[in-house]
Amino acid sequence: NLPNLSLQWIIIQSGIFSFGAGLLTYRLIPTISELTSTANLTGMDLNKKGNPKYSGKKIPESLGICVSVVYLVCVILFQLFQWFSFPETVQLSEYNAALTSICFMILLGFGDDVLNLRWRYKLVLPLFASLPLLVAYAGGTSVVVPDINFPVPLREWLGMTFDLGVFYRIYLLMLAIFCTNSINILAGINGLEVGQSVVIAISIIVHNLIELTISPNSQQHLFSLVLMIPFLFTAISLLFYNWYPSRVFVGDTFTYFSGMCFAVVAILCHFSKTLLLFFIPQILNFLYSTPQLFGVIPCPRHRVPKYNPTTDKMEAIPTNLTIINLLLMVTGPLSERKLCIYLLIFQGLCSCIGFGVRYFVAPYFF
Amino acid sequence: NLPNLSLQWIIIQSGIFSFGAGLLTYRLIPTISELTSTANLTGMDLNKKGNPKYSGKKIPESLGICVSVVYLVCVILFQLFQWFSFPETVQLSEYNAALTSICFMILLGFGDDVLNLRWRYKLVLPLFASLPLLVAYAGGTSVVVPDINFPVPLREWLGMTFDLGVFYRIYLLMLAIFCTNSINILAGINGLEVGQSVVIAISIIVHNLIELTISPNSQQHLFSLVLMIPFLFTAISLLFYNWYPSRVFVGDTFTYFSGMCFAVVAILCHFSKTLLLFFIPQILNFLYSTPQLFGVIPCPRHRVPKYNPTTDKMEAIPTNLTIINLLLMVTGPLSERKLCIYLLIFQGLCSCIGFGVRYFVAPYFF
Ligand SMILES: [Mg+2]
Ligand SMILES: [Mg+2]
Repeated sequence: NLPNLSLQWIIIQSGIFSFGAGLLTYRLIPTISELTSTANLTGMDLNKKGNPKYSGKKIPESLGICVSVVYLVCVILFQLFQWFSFPETVQLSEYNAALTSICFMILLGFGDDVLNLRWRYKLVLPLFASLPLLVAYAGGTSVVVPDINFPVPLREWLGMTFDLGVFYRIYLLMLAIFCTNSINILAGINGLEVGQSVVIAISIIVHNLIELTISPNSQQHLFSLVLMIPFLFTAISLLFYNWYPSRVFVGDTFTYFSGMCFAVVAILCHFSKTLLLFFIPQILNFLYSTPQLFGVIPCPRHRVPKYNPTTDKMEAIPTNLTIINLLLMVTGPLSERKLCIYLLIFQGLCSCIGFGVRYFVAPYFF
Repeated sequence: NLPNLSLQWIIIQSGIFSFGAGLLTYRLIPTISELTSTANLTGMDLNKKGNPKYSGKKIPESLGICVSVVYLVCVILFQLFQWFSFPETVQLSEYNAALTSICFMILLGFGDDVLNLRWRYKLVLPLFASLPLLVAYAGGTSVVVPDINFPVPLREWLGMTFDLGVFYRIYLLMLAIFCTNSINILAGINGLEVGQSVVIAISIIVHNLIELTISPNSQQHLFSLVLMIPFLFTAISLLFYNWYPSRVFVGDTFTYFSGMCFAVVAILCHFSKTLLLFFIPQILNFLYSTPQLFGVIPCPRHRVPKYNPTTDKMEAIPTNLTIINLLLMVTGPLSERKLCIYLLIFQGLCSCIGFGVRYFVAPYFF
């Protein structure tokens, strides 16, 4: 049980550490992008092909490695600091399980960027990266049965709570694999990967703050904040460089890293259902993509919309099943910058709907 | 407190898991070496320059990434398994601190191989990688004062034990940084990096087994075994490919990874002084190297001996201060294979001396 004052102190200090981490990221990205260019980790910007202003330029790739290493250093330093100043608030096994999973995922993402792993490895390795979370997950495996009486009175049949046992842990594993991959497939527009991560991180932080206001003793929401605040600051620094027109690309390193960060806090801090509410656009995109992902419809390597150099706008390719193309089919051609902004607004709206469901609809059923 | 039977079971099962990991490493190395070659992670073998049999061949680099990822997967799976079958033997916070430190170090090593980091980063990043160990280190910070009466009666002055406080933790940090770098500077001969790691790993395993025979309840030596047995098996698989003539190189990824593994078990399992006994060749090499490392004498990028293509032997370069050149100055020119074998025999002899000191000399003073 924490006195309210030290709770606020920890959050403020985490903010100070994170601000420093954000500045450091901002300073380091130019240096590291030179190194990744030298190492031949570069990419052409597909959405500017034929535009004389940008054509033929090689953009440094995999800058996620810079952000994620600064993030790790920041979290490790804050762990040390928190353990000196408020030792009773540090749950070491969960802290280190989180660090292990995130770090392993960064390693896999960077390995994928450098070595171009086959999809077999890509699918199976996140599984191993999430196992430490499963072991460290100390919570129960019971779920509260929703108070639904149609078509059957669920609570009469199953009781107030229902123990899912090992299936609950399998659900958590699936969640981690889904999070890491779903951000990876809603991508390809300048600023979109980092932008959506920033929106989700802000949503999680707001959720944690609301929960801490309701019950100041919920250790797990404090833990989630301590992991999410540095993520937010470092990601914002990256967004400055990745925003249209991108001066750097983020690589699989960043998409895997950010997906794993979200999965880690949701699993260890027990708000996996709320997280799924913040992932509505990613879920819709995944569902809409399934025919292509599972090979019913041919799947090109990049499923981005078509860039039209004469109008400087992006045009929908209806056979590429992503919500990016779906949006363009609704709105008509958009500039890349506008397209990204619209998608981020949609992500933000979904978060608002998520909050509505979480705080106004869910209480009726639980 | 563990019954003897389940202790033996855990060790045997760890052996089975590790054997599987070793086989998997052996199978994967050819596949991964193709990927690293494609990614331009290759090196020329400097010690075969001018030998028509090998000249102009590019050897795949950084195969440490394959070994270390298989190692991580093996340890994570065994953690899950041990936690299912003997939950009381799993100390989660230390387990995960170990995984975090090792994984972060692998990431840095691979990052160094790909991006060629400047030495500034190389020196400071291992520091952060070892901080989780410091936080998880639950042991006391007191040392037993040796029973020495000359020149002063130490125990009368300091007492039986002396609390070093924060200095003890700083000593542990220095140990981690020393271990990761000392293997990296005793390198450059086919098979040497992996060979010395195998000898050290065997020494540690023997030490753990002796300690477990003396007191079967020492949890920490069991933990050390669980981390070292998979290391030994995966490293042996790599040695098959890295032995003279090397078909693959191991990269900084492996040297950092192996150094960190040793530091982790020594720190978390409280045998840092014994580890230093097994590191005698590395310590001698470091001390002998200091004039070059700190820039008193000019330091070339590679400090390997000279290869003479006409005799097919390695010849000493006395200005390159490594024990490799020192040995060649004593023995005269040797073939690369023999040179590596002699160095490994020296490493093994030092381990024997270490055991002698640990079990026969130290009891007189402590
Ligand atoms: Mg990729
Ligand atoms: Mg290097």
